[in-house]
Amino acid sequence: MILAITDFVSANQVTTDLANQLITRAEEFKHGAQSNLALPIYAANLFFEPSTRTHTSFEMAERRLGMTVMPFDPRQSSVTKGETLGDTLRTLAAIGVQVAVIRHPVKSYYQSLLAEHLPLRIVNAGDGAGQHPSQMMLDLMTIHEEFGHFDGLKIAIVGDLTHSRVAKSDMQLLHELGAELTFSGPKAWYTKEFEPYGPYQPLAEIVPKVDVLMLLRVQFERLSDAEKAEFSESTYHERFGLSDKLYPKLRKSAIIMHPAPVNRGIELADDLVECPQSRIFAQMHNGVFMRMAMLELVCQQPLQERSLTHALAH
Amino acid sequence: MILAITDFVSANQVTTDLANQLITRAEEFKHGAQSNLALPIYAANLFFEPSTRTHTSFEMAERRLGMTVMPFDPRQSSVTKGETLGDTLRTLAAIGVQVAVIRHPVKSYYQSLLAEHLPLRIVNAGDGAGQHPSQMMLDLMTIHEEFGHFDGLKIAIVGDLTHSRVAKSDMQLLHELGAELTFSGPKAWYTKEFEPYGPYQPLAEIVPKVDVLMLLRVQFERLSDAEKAEFSESTYHERFGLSDKLYPKLRKSAIIMHPAPVNRGIELADDLVECPQSRIFAQMHNGVFMRMAMLELVCQQPLQERSLTHALAH
Amino acid sequence: MILAITDFVSANQVTTDLANQLITRAEEFKHGAQSNLALPIYAANLFFEPSTRTHTSFEMAERRLGMTVMPFDPRQSSVTKGETLGDTLRTLAAIGVQVAVIRHPVKSYYQSLLAEHLPLRIVNAGDGAGQHPSQMMLDLMTIHEEFGHFDGLKIAIVGDLTHSRVAKSDMQLLHELGAELTFSGPKAWYTKEFEPYGPYQPLAEIVPKVDVLMLLRVQFERLSDAEKAEFSESTYHERFGLSDKLYPKLRKSAIIMHPAPVNRGIELADDLVECPQSRIFAQMHNGVFMRMAMLELVCQQPLQERSLTHALAH
Repeated sequence: MILAITDFVSANQVTTDLANQLITRAEEFKHGAQSNLALPIYAANLFFEPSTRTHTSFEMAERRLGMTVMPFDPRQSSVTKGETLGDTLRTLAAIGVQVAVIRHPVKSYYQSLLAEHLPLRIVNAGDGAGQHPSQMMLDLMTIHEEFGHFDGLKIAIVGDLTHSRVAKSDMQLLHELGAELTFSGPKAWYTKEFEPYGPYQPLAEIVPKVDVLMLLRVQFERLSDAEKAEFSESTYHERFGLSDKLYPKLRKSAIIMHPAPVNRGIELADDLVECPQSRIFAQMHNGVFMRMAMLELVCQQPLQERSLTHALAH
Repeated sequence: MILAITDFVSANQVTTDLANQLITRAEEFKHGAQSNLALPIYAANLFFEPSTRTHTSFEMAERRLGMTVMPFDPRQSSVTKGETLGDTLRTLAAIGVQVAVIRHPVKSYYQSLLAEHLPLRIVNAGDGAGQHPSQMMLDLMTIHEEFGHFDGLKIAIVGDLTHSRVAKSDMQLLHELGAELTFSGPKAWYTKEFEPYGPYQPLAEIVPKVDVLMLLRVQFERLSDAEKAEFSESTYHERFGLSDKLYPKLRKSAIIMHPAPVNRGIELADDLVECPQSRIFAQMHNGVFMRMAMLELVCQQPLQERSLTHALAH
Repeated sequence: MILAITDFVSANQVTTDLANQLITRAEEFKHGAQSNLALPIYAANLFFEPSTRTHTSFEMAERRLGMTVMPFDPRQSSVTKGETLGDTLRTLAAIGVQVAVIRHPVKSYYQSLLAEHLPLRIVNAGDGAGQHPSQMMLDLMTIHEEFGHFDGLKIAIVGDLTHSRVAKSDMQLLHELGAELTFSGPKAWYTKEFEPYGPYQPLAEIVPKVDVLMLLRVQFERLSDAEKAEFSESTYHERFGLSDKLYPKLRKSAIIMHPAPVNRGIELADDLVECPQSRIFAQMHNGVFMRMAMLELVCQQPLQERSLTHALAH
């Protein structure tokens, strides 16, 4: 049975069944499968925050699916005249845009949009400190591609747990899929909500045991005074980063992941970014195929008759 | 006889014959007709003011006609180094751009360009408080689609008459096409130039009688002190807007139009934007097909041999 | 023998053989030849400085070659979060971009990139006061198109010699190709490095003798105090520009060139920009075909196995 959704906004939508379905389809795309979506499909990418990776990756996924991509620059749009996001999307829909990929700084911005039953599909490419489902899915795809399964895999998530859009959703789904999780990094960031999923351990104890070492980007500009007192940009690497000294203790079959952009020399040593066990660029590469699978999923379902319909009935 | 023009810059170019021809063609496009323009045609959209609706609508029209759209961002162009608009267009033409769609804040900016006989076609997508011919034409298309004719239709134009790019050109052409016009909104905005086209009446008297209620966006940031003294953002709706109280007095066959973006709760009540009698999003939808008709019109005529020719003669 | 390169970053790469090969191919494209590059090829244009001409010209060249162009706006990219240019390119490569066209204000920015053996091709569209190989090549193409050869042609380069990206590289290659060079403009700009290539002469003496008069843009905002004391925007034209008075002294077979944007009324009289002997817009027109030849050249060679490969090996 093919699972069907018309908006992809949250990691919470991803059951283990849907995760497996998407991974299978993304791997097919990676091996050259073509989509049979009925074209033309008009897409627009609305990025209200800077992004190279996610933005370009969605653009590439859309083109590889054969979609027509309409340019949209928020700084040149009527949003600057005070138009709401809902009215902007209603406008794009009236003009013919069928799927909108949105990155927005406001957490859960999509909740009110979904309540409006807009006549186009929404794919969330990141909402502030909230969800980032396509990043979660490309992480899962990269792990699956390496090991062929999740059950019993030892996976460590290390670093800025509390601010990471991805850590929490990765954690929940990996747990459901049978992985064994541990956490590391500054201990204050290992809050109560992580406890049910796995223990905290110092990085040096974790490195020799894991199959997957997921490092998270630290956003130093967001640190509290207490955090700044405990560690700085220069001491983080020594205490919580993957150094050249720790690296040889990784098992040869283990892989290093990071959502990027990497703070080189902080989360991991500069020369490890492209080391043989790193999958950091493979994650980006896989992201295109995973986003193809996600876009195909939402576009192959007919939209229930949503609002505006009467206005466009002629 | 097919009317032919190579630049579409002003509503004044539109005779009743041309209006009917464009409406017919736009309706054909809406019902699936394909253009037989000889491709490739290279288009560029030069938007020197923010816009979602008009910009995206032209982009969509170009793509549906099969044109190749060249990206152009004024903030990243040599205009920032002081290059004139004429030289920028001459440059784009030398590179191969055949039609330029331009929105510019300077009223009648296109006059000097036409005098230069540039070797590419110009379509005006709005010049400050001046012309906006594609908006006028999509308004006419939307009315025609609803009623099948203009003769004898009762049409009210309500609101910011003096600052509206569209009110005056709509008024003139609708008058020529046989519609009966009335005007409403703040009375000071009903200046002498409107008198030959129809009387001023309070909105409450107009609403029960009209076939078409055209509301105009109020730009509160441009109000004079006298206007601010007379009414504010909070009192405008009560005195000059379509409220939930007035709405039931509209005839069931009447339609509500607005060029958007709407000030929700000001020109009309929030919940009326998508009410069954609103054609606000239908206008946007029709705009794509009307712009296809306009672009096709200017592109199917060969350009008279214009300047630069000798330079490109090889 | 077809010369092969995978990155086109500097005029120094262009031997006389490669120049002739590129000119031949560009002329073929101008006469309608199609490229047989294996598509799809994904390109991205990274412009960190404003540009109309060069940016649009590369965009057009890519589209005419059938490439798929991925949008990239530096102000909306992770470069604003501090990501290095190298990591940005590595990211684009991982996503599938195969050729990056870059304009960047830092002179020789590409040196460190080449050292990193990035897994995509780089074409330099200008590096600060450094190289601008595509401008050099379109200059050569325009001269060749006019005269059919370079040997013995009398070519004058006039104006801002020291700040011009193009003057020095044009000079070296034209010299190797057998042209006879002279220089003019403010004498202080004729520094020692120009002496081996040709003498300095006052413009009035040069004009009647040359086949090609190459005028260079003066950037008044960069002048030193001494230069400002010697001449101003208003006196430059009279002393060093091509005036309406000098123009008739040009031989009828001679041509005027300028890399543009032109300071009208300074480097040459306003009405001479499009005069019959001007090739200024022809240069821009030729630029598209020359860039097609350059892009084809770098894209038809397989990339040696460069880094990231292991990461993408799956």
